[in-house]
Amino acid sequence: MARLVLHQTHHTLADFDSIAEYLKVSMNGEGLHLFPELFLTGYPLQDLCLQHAFIDSYENHFGRLNDWLKSLPKKESCRGLVPGLHYERETNGLPKKIENVIYEAVPGTGFRKIYTKRLLPNYDIFDEQKYFVPGKGNCFYEFQGNLLGLHICEDMWTSSFHQLDPLDLMFNEMRENNLPVKMLVNLSASPFDAAKNHKRIDRAKNISLKFKCPFLYLNRVGGEDEILFDGSSFVIAGNELTLQMKSFEKGVESVDLPSIKGNYAEVPVFHPENSWEGLFSPQLETKKSPAELKTWSDEECALILKALCFGLQEYAGKSGFRKFLVALSGGLDSALVLALVKLALKPGQDVEAIYMPSIHSAILSTQLCEEMCRRIKVPLRHLPIKFLHSTVKNAFTQTFTEKFEGLTDENVQSRLRGMLLYTRSNQTGAMVINTSNKSELAVGYSTQYGDSVGAISLLGDLYKTEVYRLARYVNEKHGDLIPDGIISRGPSAELRQNQLDQDSLPPYERLDPMLEGILSYRLGKKELSGLGFGEEEILKTLNLYLKSEYKRAQFCPIIKIKAKSFGFGYRIPISKNLKYHL
Amino acid sequence: MARLVLHQTHHTLADFDSIAEYLKVSMNGEGLHLFPELFLTGYPLQDLCLQHAFIDSYENHFGRLNDWLKSLPKKESCRGLVPGLHYERETNGLPKKIENVIYEAVPGTGFRKIYTKRLLPNYDIFDEQKYFVPGKGNCFYEFQGNLLGLHICEDMWTSSFHQLDPLDLMFNEMRENNLPVKMLVNLSASPFDAAKNHKRIDRAKNISLKFKCPFLYLNRVGGEDEILFDGSSFVIAGNELTLQMKSFEKGVESVDLPSIKGNYAEVPVFHPENSWEGLFSPQLETKKSPAELKTWSDEECALILKALCFGLQEYAGKSGFRKFLVALSGGLDSALVLALVKLALKPGQDVEAIYMPSIHSAILSTQLCEEMCRRIKVPLRHLPIKFLHSTVKNAFTQTFTEKFEGLTDENVQSRLRGMLLYTRSNQTGAMVINTSNKSELAVGYSTQYGDSVGAISLLGDLYKTEVYRLARYVNEKHGDLIPDGIISRGPSAELRQNQLDQDSLPPYERLDPMLEGILSYRLGKKELSGLGFGEEEILKTLNLYLKSEYKRAQFCPIIKIKAKSFGFGYRIPISKNLKYHL
Repeated sequence: MARLVLHQTHHTLADFDSIAEYLKVSMNGEGLHLFPELFLTGYPLQDLCLQHAFIDSYENHFGRLNDWLKSLPKKESCRGLVPGLHYERETNGLPKKIENVIYEAVPGTGFRKIYTKRLLPNYDIFDEQKYFVPGKGNCFYEFQGNLLGLHICEDMWTSSFHQLDPLDLMFNEMRENNLPVKMLVNLSASPFDAAKNHKRIDRAKNISLKFKCPFLYLNRVGGEDEILFDGSSFVIAGNELTLQMKSFEKGVESVDLPSIKGNYAEVPVFHPENSWEGLFSPQLETKKSPAELKTWSDEECALILKALCFGLQEYAGKSGFRKFLVALSGGLDSALVLALVKLALKPGQDVEAIYMPSIHSAILSTQLCEEMCRRIKVPLRHLPIKFLHSTVKNAFTQTFTEKFEGLTDENVQSRLRGMLLYTRSNQTGAMVINTSNKSELAVGYSTQYGDSVGAISLLGDLYKTEVYRLARYVNEKHGDLIPDGIISRGPSAELRQNQLDQDSLPPYERLDPMLEGILSYRLGKKELSGLGFGEEEILKTLNLYLKSEYKRAQFCPIIKIKAKSFGFGYRIPISKNLKYHL
Repeated sequence: MARLVLHQTHHTLADFDSIAEYLKVSMNGEGLHLFPELFLTGYPLQDLCLQHAFIDSYENHFGRLNDWLKSLPKKESCRGLVPGLHYERETNGLPKKIENVIYEAVPGTGFRKIYTKRLLPNYDIFDEQKYFVPGKGNCFYEFQGNLLGLHICEDMWTSSFHQLDPLDLMFNEMRENNLPVKMLVNLSASPFDAAKNHKRIDRAKNISLKFKCPFLYLNRVGGEDEILFDGSSFVIAGNELTLQMKSFEKGVESVDLPSIKGNYAEVPVFHPENSWEGLFSPQLETKKSPAELKTWSDEECALILKALCFGLQEYAGKSGFRKFLVALSGGLDSALVLALVKLALKPGQDVEAIYMPSIHSAILSTQLCEEMCRRIKVPLRHLPIKFLHSTVKNAFTQTFTEKFEGLTDENVQSRLRGMLLYTRSNQTGAMVINTSNKSELAVGYSTQYGDSVGAISLLGDLYKTEVYRLARYVNEKHGDLIPDGIISRGPSAELRQNQLDQDSLPPYERLDPMLEGILSYRLGKKELSGLGFGEEEILKTLNLYLKSEYKRAQFCPIIKIKAKSFGFGYRIPISKNLKYHL
């Protein structure tokens, strides 16, 4: 019997001591121990993997582990497949060649490099071709008489824009040499998006049917700035999911290879993915006219909620924060952010809300903030900005001849709030949580250094209509944390009398699908028009989107829950001629 | 006689109308017309080149130019080498394959793709492997009986980390087939750094000597957010520079091929470049102990000055600004920024300075700001923050039990200034110019949303000691714009009584070379110690650097004047275990 042990691990980037400790403890047990992609270092490392100190620390760590492995008694019943980096260095110590590899760990012998990742993703948030050199051969690995086909992450995701298909290459070698492959094993560090688990399982099912053997998928857990790794490791045999591990929780599971039975009679259906769109597509219902955003199911909402809470804790934990601070406005975005932070809190952590009304804040806003904080038992502090606002206005009126009105008078309120919020943050050591949503970010409907401030953004990957959806879900499942009045009132920035978002923007149920078309499907005016939108709303949206690039360029990290998000993987020049798009 | 016309062009990204107009006018003349890399689109496009609207607009533009070329009378004496993109598209219109190519433009016939760039740079600010597919063959192009060897940009920069050497491949084909190559032509879009022109010429000299024919280098002019293109096109024959075009100015020059004489007897010396360091190295004098920063020569200072003024104008022009706003503190950074803006001004533009003293501002600061503005004839506005500061302090004291002191009391002053500065910017429509320097950015010695605000940073790629150097240069060459008192006083943030930078930081003449070692040479503790620095100052510097990543992540674009800068090409995770470095 061959036992495979799946280590769905969770470590901080470059936390070599914890990683070594974990490996030592886990390799005590019998079986073939599997670890996720780049287990020995963490992922994504970006330029860290080019630094002298990183490389030295890593190689020391690797060398110590290798010595420890050598010092163990030989033991046939225990092996590890341990992914890590492999360096060739120049004479000056800097890297000449870096490979993303799998090491076989053998007690009594040490590490042996057995496979180098062949497909290096280089789209969107991925920059692997910047750092790594691809491998060339297939890897069949034998453990206790069972032959396994090994891959790393992207190797299973071949599509038309990769110039190589590692699965096909492995399949052909298996056929030609009549190799009795018992299982495919994919060791991954695969970023989360709310629609991805489904996609992974569909893909794995097809691969399992094609190879007529079970497929094992192991993924890491972690939050690296904006990018989350959800784990969600699984084993699939034909059409049957025989193991599914949890999302966003580390864990260990084992499977006994000969006992996994599957029905491999079905013919696999590989959907040929379009080069770019296939990666970013699932959000738009294009059969309706105008197109609509897909609505998240309860299950997907639960996953998004878990992802946001996890991502917040990861960032806070690694930055050393135990307190959070949210500016409550009486509107929905800040209310949902506060509810999410409250749901995410661990023992010993707390959150505080600040309400900073101006002369334009409705009494209803005050009442709703107070009601919300009573319900969820969060202290609410009042810091009115009326006096500061008039003080600034007076100073300007006395100093300058220009009028103090319009956008000047609106933005100053937002920036006074940003300043007060960060002053409070300095005073208590709390982390400021940003409250912008993706619609707002996409059209620049926020004040730079004002309501756009924050250490991290929870809603920056959710359109406004999705903020509504998630708020309702939170209220259903967690007992009406957010007062109905907040959900039902019309959205307003409250920077002038009777201001409503809808005075400046298309209605969100039309704006959001247009934005999704622009961002995820790379659509322009012509294609949006083909999806049933009117010329006026398209031009308004494109115009706002194109002119607000500079605001997004200075925005905080956004917890990524979609395939296409603002942030590291979104690379659009600020300066360009806009006419091509209009 | 074969005439080659070098078009050192300057167009905004995707400004297809201007680009087409320029091509039409220039192709009127006789000769072989040469244009820089991606002339037809601009560079770098990043994700723009994946969008439906961009591709459609580009292909229309290309098609119209092609029709226009076809409609011309046939003419043997006129050809163009016109770099642009070449798309293969999926059925849904999105790109399947994009190539960075040279088209031959033939009057009476149209465009013909003759070469695809072979080396796609993918390090630092370059992401070309994300978008483009490399070409496979050499390109020898004949014009009026003269054979030319063609390359695009990076093709001439092979080093050990590229797995291909286009120069060698061309050289071998030339040798094997005994091809009478008369000139090498490199069409580039090569980002500026202050040490690069020298490097380009050295390289070109060696290539010219190796091939025993002249080398022509054509580069574009432009400022794309942080990245500048300086033009500086040239022709070199053996050791002799036979043509040198201006930096940061568009222009047209021509050379007659048979008339370029060179001495090719010398043996070329190719310095084998290290994979990474060779790209980023020139700033540190490592023979001294401790290592020192190289001092910019007068010529280099002139170039940096030109680059900063050019970059400012590019960004402002493309964003539609005609007014500038600088917060003057009485310190050197803001004084130099104001002087630079003043020197950069074009007719119809103006700049205003604001001085926002707090209770900790020395009387000397006020006097120096006033003196500076008198000298350079810039209006100075006084907006004291004393009253706002005490108002905020009172509000906090009344609302919260925590003390209002230390960092809280310091940062609030800086953030009040950020708020006032942007309020004034809203009022006048002026662009706020950031005043941070590279040393400050590297150690996080600034207040987020306070003194770190701005639309663009002029000094963000200059260490503090380089700020001194450039200030002195500006004063020497442009008549003492900056009062001596500003240059000679000790740097201070003036956020508490008698505060000096040197209370918190190592002296700049030691800090700056350590930072350059960390950033450009990727050095760690061990290597810095080897350069003669002490453990205490190294640890202090590394600690400050590692903990301030989150501030840099929200910083504005920095005009890039070095090979290694903060910004788009600097990719370091915010969250990581810091122990590996300390």
